[in-house]
Amino acid sequence: MFAIAPCTAWLLPPVPFFAAEATELLDPSLVNRPIVQMVLLSLFFIYLAAKTGGEITNRLGLTSILGELVGGAVVGISLLNLVVLPGPGIEASDSLLLSFIQLFHSGLGEAELEGIFAAQGEILANLSQLGVILLLFQVGLESNLRELVRVAPQAAVVVLVGITGPLFFGLLGLLFLFGAEMPGALFAAAAPTAISIGISASILNDLDMLKSPEGQLIVGAAVLDDITGILILTVIIGISSGTGVSLVGLATLIVSAAVFLVGSTVLSRLIGSMFVDLLKPMQVRGGLLMLSLAFCFGLGFLADTIRLEALMGAFAAGIILSQTEVRSNLEHQLEPVAQLLVPIFFVVTGARTDLRVLNPFAPGGWVVILMGLFLAATVAIGRISGAYAVPTKQKLNRLAVGVGMLPLGEVALVIAGVGVSSGQMSSELSAAVVMAILVTVILTPICLRAALGRDSKAAAD
Amino acid sequence: MFAIAPCTAWLLPPVPFFAAEATELLDPSLVNRPIVQMVLLSLFFIYLAAKTGGEITNRLGLTSILGELVGGAVVGISLLNLVVLPGPGIEASDSLLLSFIQLFHSGLGEAELEGIFAAQGEILANLSQLGVILLLFQVGLESNLRELVRVAPQAAVVVLVGITGPLFFGLLGLLFLFGAEMPGALFAAAAPTAISIGISASILNDLDMLKSPEGQLIVGAAVLDDITGILILTVIIGISSGTGVSLVGLATLIVSAAVFLVGSTVLSRLIGSMFVDLLKPMQVRGGLLMLSLAFCFGLGFLADTIRLEALMGAFAAGIILSQTEVRSNLEHQLEPVAQLLVPIFFVVTGARTDLRVLNPFAPGGWVVILMGLFLAATVAIGRISGAYAVPTKQKLNRLAVGVGMLPLGEVALVIAGVGVSSGQMSSELSAAVVMAILVTVILTPICLRAALGRDSKAAAD
Repeated sequence: MFAIAPCTAWLLPPVPFFAAEATELLDPSLVNRPIVQMVLLSLFFIYLAAKTGGEITNRLGLTSILGELVGGAVVGISLLNLVVLPGPGIEASDSLLLSFIQLFHSGLGEAELEGIFAAQGEILANLSQLGVILLLFQVGLESNLRELVRVAPQAAVVVLVGITGPLFFGLLGLLFLFGAEMPGALFAAAAPTAISIGISASILNDLDMLKSPEGQLIVGAAVLDDITGILILTVIIGISSGTGVSLVGLATLIVSAAVFLVGSTVLSRLIGSMFVDLLKPMQVRGGLLMLSLAFCFGLGFLADTIRLEALMGAFAAGIILSQTEVRSNLEHQLEPVAQLLVPIFFVVTGARTDLRVLNPFAPGGWVVILMGLFLAATVAIGRISGAYAVPTKQKLNRLAVGVGMLPLGEVALVIAGVGVSSGQMSSELSAAVVMAILVTVILTPICLRAALGRDSKAAAD
Repeated sequence: MFAIAPCTAWLLPPVPFFAAEATELLDPSLVNRPIVQMVLLSLFFIYLAAKTGGEITNRLGLTSILGELVGGAVVGISLLNLVVLPGPGIEASDSLLLSFIQLFHSGLGEAELEGIFAAQGEILANLSQLGVILLLFQVGLESNLRELVRVAPQAAVVVLVGITGPLFFGLLGLLFLFGAEMPGALFAAAAPTAISIGISASILNDLDMLKSPEGQLIVGAAVLDDITGILILTVIIGISSGTGVSLVGLATLIVSAAVFLVGSTVLSRLIGSMFVDLLKPMQVRGGLLMLSLAFCFGLGFLADTIRLEALMGAFAAGIILSQTEVRSNLEHQLEPVAQLLVPIFFVVTGARTDLRVLNPFAPGGWVVILMGLFLAATVAIGRISGAYAVPTKQKLNRLAVGVGMLPLGEVALVIAGVGVSSGQMSSELSAAVVMAILVTVILTPICLRAALGRDSKAAAD
C-alpha cells in the first residue's frame, strides 16, 4: 500500500541514522515530527499553488481566487495528490506527500501512517477553517451595519426567490429531463441553494465592490442564505437518516439564529465600546490584533455552539468592531494575516474537490456534465430573478447582485457528501453538483465584471 | 471519566436538537465540528492568557514573553486545565474544555473524545510550532549575515564553555551534593545545556537588542547551541535506549548541519536574488508574504529532514532574504502575522509545563526546588564564563551576552521528558529541570536589563 517507487529511493535512502531511530523517541514529548514535516511541506505547496494559480488567472483578467481554487485542484486529489485530506473514498495511500515523508522514517507502520494522514488532514482542515473565519471577520469589519439592516428585507426577497428557483426547477428537471430518482434528485437540487459566502465575498473584495450597495445587499443575502442553508441541510439530513424532521429542532435553530443576529445587532454599539474601553489601557504591542481575534474566535465558538456556523460569529464580531474607532487600524493589521490564512481555505477547498468524477469519456460522462450545467443554469436563473424581484426604488445594479450570488462552494459539497455517504444519492448526481460548483465559480468573476461594466457604461451615458 | 459537574449542566442542556444529532453527520465531509470548537475556544483562551499575562509582566517592568509563558501556565495543565495538550500522564479527562464541549455533543463515546483530544493537541502543537518557526524566520530576517559569520568563532567559545560548565558541575553536584543516581543525573545535567533560542531571541527583540553586536553574538551562539543540543540529545537517547551511540550517525549529523549552514551562507546571495527575480513579475497582492513563507516552510522541511530542526531552516531562510531588497517590506508585513502566531508558542509552552511538580509541601519538595536552583546556577556560571572567555579586543558587554544565553526552554523539557518516559530519570529530577527553566526564564529579562543598564551607565561616565 505504501510501496516506495524505486526511482525515488535514491533521493535519501531510509538509512537508520541513529541507533533505534533515536529522534523518533522525541515524538511523544513535544511535536510529532512526521506530522510537522507533512504540514510544512503541505503549506509549501499550498502557497506555491495559491500564488501560481492566482497569478495566472489574474493575468487572464479573472479573479485570483479562481486561480487559488484551481491551483488547489492541481495539487489536490484531482491531479498531483500532494495536498490530500481524508474524505469519503480517500485513503492515506492516496497522499504522495505521505509516501515521500515515509522515506525518512523507516519505522512507521500502517497504523502510524493512518494517524499521520488523519492528523495532517485535521490540521489543514482547521487552518482552512480559520482562514474562512478570518475572511468573514474581515467582511464584517468592512461592512456597514446600518446599510445591512436597511437592505435586510431586500436580502430576504433575493434569498427566497434565489433558493426556491433552483430547488423547484432543479428538482423537476432532474426528475423529468434526466430521469434521476428520489431522494437523490432532492439532494442534488438542494445543494445549489447554498451560496459560498467565502468565495462570493472574496470576489466582491477583489473587484472593490464589498462596500457598494450591491455588495452589501449580496453580503446580507449571503448571511441569510447561510442560515436557510443550515435549515435545508437539517431537513435533508432528517429525511436521509430516515428519522424525520424535528419541528422543534428547526424552530430552535431559527429562534437561536434570530436571537444571535438581532442580539449582536442591537448590542453591537455597547459591546464595541466595552471592547475599546478594555483595549485602551493596553501598553503591549499586538494587543489590538490578539484581543480582536480572541473576540472573533469566541463569538465564532458561540455561534457554532448554537448550531449556527462559526462563520456567522466571526461576521458578527467584525460587524461589532466595524462601529468602533479601532476599525481602520484593525483592518490594516488584519490584511497580512488574512493574506496568510485565507488562501489556505481556497487551496484546500480546491484540493478536496475531486474533479476526476467529471470524465466525459466515462459511460454517461456527458450526461453528468449536462446535469451540472443544468443545475448551474437553475442557480443563475434563480439568483438573477431574486435580484430583479427586489422591491426598491433606488438605483441598483440588479444583474450584478444576482451574479454576485452565484458561487456555490463548500456547503454544496457538504450536502452532496452527506447524500453520497448516506447512500441516497448516486455518484453521478454528486459529480453534477461538483460541475455546477465549478461553472458558477468560474463564471462569477467574469460575469460580475461584465455586469459592472455595463453599469458604469450606463452611468457614463 | 467525563462526568459533567451538575453545576454547569444548566448552561446549555445537551438536548438532541435534531433527530439523530443530525449535524454530526456533517463531520466526515468537511470539518469535525467538536474539534473546530475546541480549537476556537483554545485560541480564545490562548490569546486572552497571552494578553493578560503580557500586560501584567510588562507593567512590572518584565518582558511580556514571561507573561505569556505564565499566562500559559495559568490556563494550562498546572492550574485551570483549559489549554491541555496530550503528554506523559496527561489524559483526555484532564481537559476542562473537552468536558465543556461534550455538553453540546451528547453522542460522543470514549474513543471519540480521545480522538478529539488528540486532534486538538496536534493542531495546537503545530500552530505553536509554526509560531516558533515564524519567530526564527523573523530573527533571521533581522540578522546580519556578515556580523554572524564574523562572530562565529566567538560564538563557538561561548557555546563550548557554556555547555561544558553546566554539564560538568551539574553532574558532579547532582551526584555528590544531592545524592542523585546515574543515569538520571546525566539527563538532568544535560537538559540545561540547551538554550531556548525562541525565548532568548524574543527577549532580545523586546529589549531592542537583536541587532546589537551582543544580540548577534547571542543569536549565533544559540544557533550553534541548538546543533550541539541535538547532538547531546542523540547521545543521551543512545545511552538511555541501551543501544549505544552510533558514531557514524553523529558524524552524519555534524556534516549535514555544517553543509546546510555553510551552504545557505555561501549561496545566500544567489538564492536571494533568484527569489527576488521570481517575485518581480508578480502582480497579485500578498505575493511577497506567501512566497516568503513558502520559502521559509520549504527550507524548514529540508532542515528537519536532514535531522536538524525546522527552526534552523526558517532561520536560514530569514538570513537569505535579509540580504535582499524585500527585507524591510517583508519585516513590516510579517509583524502582524508574528503577533498572531508567536504568542501561541509561548502560551502553549507555558501550558505544557506542569508546575504542579514543584510542590514545596510534598515530601522532598524543597530538595527538588534546591536542585532546580542549583541547576540554574550552573547554567548561569557556565554561560557567563563562556561570555568572558570570548577572545575579542572589541568592546563587548560580556555580562549581557552571558545573561542573554540563560533561558532554558522546550528542548530542556524534551530531554527531561525523554529521561522520564524511558524510565531512567526520576520525576524529582525532571521537576528540578522544570524549576531551572522557570528560574532562568524569569531572571533573564531582569538581569539582561540590569546588565545593559550598567553598560549604558559605564558608557555615559
